Amino acid sequence: MKLFAKEEMEKVVHLDKEVIDVVEKAFTDLVKKEVQMPPIMRIDIPEYNGEVDIKSAYIAGYDSFAVKLSSGFFDNYKFGLPSASGMMLLLSSETGIPQAVLADNGYLTEMRTAAAGAVAAKHLAREHINTAGVIGTGAQARYQVKALKLVRDFDRLLVYGRTHEKAEKYKDEMERELGIEVTISRTAEEVVKASDVVITTTPATDPVIKAEWLHPGLHITAMGSDAEHKQELESSVLEKADVFVCDVVAQSIRLGELRACNSQRVIDEAIEMGEITAGSKKGRSSENQITICDLTGTGVQDTAIARYAYERLTK
Amino acid sequence: MKLFAKEEMEKVVHLDKEVIDVVEKAFTDLVKKEVQMPPIMRIDIPEYNGEVDIKSAYIAGYDSFAVKLSSGFFDNYKFGLPSASGMMLLLSSETGIPQAVLADNGYLTEMRTAAAGAVAAKHLAREHINTAGVIGTGAQARYQVKALKLVRDFDRLLVYGRTHEKAEKYKDEMERELGIEVTISRTAEEVVKASDVVITTTPATDPVIKAEWLHPGLHITAMGSDAEHKQELESSVLEKADVFVCDVVAQSIRLGELRACNSQRVIDEAIEMGEITAGSKKGRSSENQITICDLTGTGVQDTAIARYAYERLTK
Repeated sequence: MKLFAKEEMEKVVHLDKEVIDVVEKAFTDLVKKEVQMPPIMRIDIPEYNGEVDIKSAYIAGYDSFAVKLSSGFFDNYKFGLPSASGMMLLLSSETGIPQAVLADNGYLTEMRTAAAGAVAAKHLAREHINTAGVIGTGAQARYQVKALKLVRDFDRLLVYGRTHEKAEKYKDEMERELGIEVTISRTAEEVVKASDVVITTTPATDPVIKAEWLHPGLHITAMGSDAEHKQELESSVLEKADVFVCDVVAQSIRLGELRACNSQRVIDEAIEMGEITAGSKKGRSSENQITICDLTGTGVQDTAIARYAYERLTK
Repeated sequence: MKLFAKEEMEKVVHLDKEVIDVVEKAFTDLVKKEVQMPPIMRIDIPEYNGEVDIKSAYIAGYDSFAVKLSSGFFDNYKFGLPSASGMMLLLSSETGIPQAVLADNGYLTEMRTAAAGAVAAKHLAREHINTAGVIGTGAQARYQVKALKLVRDFDRLLVYGRTHEKAEKYKDEMERELGIEVTISRTAEEVVKASDVVITTTPATDPVIKAEWLHPGLHITAMGSDAEHKQELESSVLEKADVFVCDVVAQSIRLGELRACNSQRVIDEAIEMGEITAGSKKGRSSENQITICDLTGTGVQDTAIARYAYERLTK
């Protein structure tokens, strides 16, 4: 069993259309194939404001599958360390024997999460947009926007974050990397009202988006909430939307935006991303719709990206 | 983050009294300290008759904790491979950052499982025994009996296994290693009726021990059942016992012997091993009692042995 370091993976796996396709196929497989995807295992470390999540998914017919650990320790900045870390393990489906340790430190997760956002935007955002908006200024705020740029063209980006210094840093980096104008908004409201696509990337436990800010044609991808105490969108935001999509309904109900949803209609009408990517349901069907995608993250995406990475590492 | 191979671990971790103490302390910590021990995550691979179990436990105050993967692929013998494999990961409790991959291939699990059996026997078996009995002829059948020999002296061992060839091999090895007489019994009944301590180590889904075979002073450690469809002891066996102990009641109800128990009294009176090791409850209190210990395996044991191994590996 070999251990691969993050640097090795950064050489062969990039945020590009190939990775978006890998993740899109994972969503399709999630609905079309036999999948064993147990509920996420979470270990809370209250003393250090941390949690470790373990995800896995076995897709019938795949000769390997991943087990993914990701840590989120939100006091780590005090030690000058990033809050996220982790690894993926690839196991043989036929013998159960571990094949590789991908010590990616969360890199592959960042990739497959951003790619999922791109898949969501690909099917749900308006074809032509001008302005993208992002709530949050961390790693996913960067990756999600870069991924969005691969599926939608836009020349303006609005960003809101609670710490101005971080927002400044974000603006500098993204202007340089994307070559577009980045504006720091003073409120989340400004971002939502002026953007065609909004991505929320926060660990918020109180909603950051209110229903009154929504407008026709808007698409929101909410990827921050992945645990019972987190929520980025008010229930009324979900009720006001025309289309609500998530990666897995049961998971969104347990850990995502559907958890705090007061409307049974929204829950009943929720579409799973794989139904859209498999072609059985439509994404956006008119310019004026308000669409939402709630991403909590699935083991299927982890297995897909781990296999992709391993294939490219051992080529 | 370093990867340690099985051979390195075999050099520094052995089945001895030190390891039994490590595991005994783990049980005590399970009841005395704040422990985050989420339910076991299981991934079934039906096509290959396999399953992967993931266990973890964080004990407040410990600066690291383990995540343990173990695979049981029961067709592997067709490829000349062992059915069990796996690894342990050690993570920092303070930062969530992975410290080590212990590619033990199940070795540490074998150690901590056998050690748990020894802890059970230490508190539940009669002080003085003559004959030990084992149902099963695999790895745990070997380790459990060796561990028992560290806490109880006996000069005779009875073994029953479904495959005579394997039982012969077991007898040869164990006679050589323990220097005692090993007799192959033709039935499980013979083993139970003639032994002072019986250990069941099978993946049986139908009970292997019947109530009529029990006799005063007998202690049974059942370690085979660790999933919903497994069962080694009839419900009436549990009802006939004077003392029923398990590692974790909720887990025994979900995955162990209590799952098929028809008696609410047995469930209500079930004692957790940690209560005994912590001194709050008694184990065996008379020579004539029939005692049972159901071991399903806990993340606390994994964390304890992983930390112990890492400490000895990095000394």
